[in-house]
Formats: sequence, structure tokens, C-alpha cells
Amino acid sequence: MAGDKELEEGAAFTPRFDANGLIVCVTVEAATREILMVAYMNQLALDKTIETGVAHYWSRSRGALWRKGDTSGQVQRVVSLSVDCDQDAIQLMVEAGGDGKACHTGRKSCFYRKLATEGGARRLVFAE
Amino acid sequence: MAGDKELEEGAAFTPRFDANGLIVCVTVEAATREILMVAYMNQLALDKTIETGVAHYWSRSRGALWRKGDTSGQVQRVVSLSVDCDQDAIQLMVEAGGDGKACHTGRKSCFYRKLATEGGARRLVFAE
Repeated sequence: MAGDKELEEGAAFTPRFDANGLIVCVTVEAATREILMVAYMNQLALDKTIETGVAHYWSRSRGALWRKGDTSGQVQRVVSLSVDCDQDAIQLMVEAGGDGKACHTGRKSCFYRKLATEGGARRLVFAE
Repeated sequence: MAGDKELEEGAAFTPRFDANGLIVCVTVEAATREILMVAYMNQLALDKTIETGVAHYWSRSRGALWRKGDTSGQVQRVVSLSVDCDQDAIQLMVEAGGDGKACHTGRKSCFYRKLATEGGARRLVFAE
């Protein structure tokens, strides 16, 4: 969080990839501001996203470029891309195509379970 | 994304920390759904967050537990905590205390710059 004026206040887009060459991306449905998913991009996925206007990620499990929607039809059209203060996180505002279910479990959002605590015990409850 | 039924459909909260012992956390203002920041938690920060109802993170730059607001006054009261399908990302809905400016640059959100592309050139423009 040490201040780096150009990084934080400049106009240069200089995303900071981690040791694995990845940057975290929070993908939000533009119309509702609902967070659909959190995924990762490498330079290639980021470039493809910017150049095509459609969200691309890097699949860590498959080790491959992943154009969201290629198999599911849930193509995500980019409405805006923003970067955080120290340029190590991206927020993607999208319009979700298909039936709008971004999660591979068939739900709209990957965040479908909330933490409940009772007497110190922790369990997940389904939000929907 | 390989399906793990208990991980994805179960009630057990089993957050998956990465090789550095961290999990990414997206912190959202509950009232507006605006994303305030993206930060990281280790097991300690997550436990403290759950036990106190106030957001704690792990500062990667300082290598220290960080109770948000200790120096700034921007304490974040937890409204809800959710986890994504494969339990490697957390969404924290909060009410932000103080003047509500979560970013250390003095802005409400860390995501204050959007990418603009003109003729292939990329630059950041200030959202506000």
C-alpha cells in the first residue's frame, strides 16, 4: 500500500501480475451490480478481453485460455474494465449472455452460500 | 472447476487458501453493492473477521494482520460473508464506518479508474 504516484494516480494501465503471471478479476453484472464470479487473467486473457470486448480468463485448473461461454453459451460482454489503486485487481462489468448463469453449477453467481455462525459453529447456508 | 460435490454443494465452510496461505476477498458496500476493495485474508484474518464482525485482512506488503480502520477509522462492519463455488474466494458485504472511504488514496473505492481504448492505445480515465 506504499504510495506510488504514477501507479495509483497515473493514466498508464500497468497491471501487476503475480508470481504466476496472473491478476485477479471480479466480474460483476452491470445491470444489478451482482458479483457473478472471481477468476484470473494472464496477459493473454487480458489482451483478448480488451481486444474482443468479451471476457477471457486463464483457467488455473486447466492451464488454458478460457473464453467464457465457449461451452456454456454464457458469453460476457464487457461494459467496462476498471483497475484498483495498486493495479493488482481488475473489476469487469459485464452483460451476461445466454441464460445469464455464470457459475458452472448452473447458478447465476458463484457466491450462492453465506456463512452462518451459531454458538461458534460455522456452516454455509444457501442464499437462494 | 472439476465438480467436488461436498466442496460446492455442502454446508461445510472449508475455505481453500493458496500456496501463501491466503484467500482473496472482495469487499462490497452492502447498501450500494459498490465494490470497495479487493484484499487478502489468511486463516487468522478470516477467523478475526468472523469472530468480531469487523473486517480483518492480511497485509501482504507489511506481512501483518490488518484490522481495517485501525489507523483510518474506516472500520467495516460485516453484514454477510459468502464464499464461491470452489471456496477459494470470499465476498464480504459491509457497512463502512468513518467517512466511508475504503481506499488509502482517500477515495470510497479502490476502483476509481476505468480503461479507455482509442485506436488500440490503452489509458486509464478517472471514473469520478
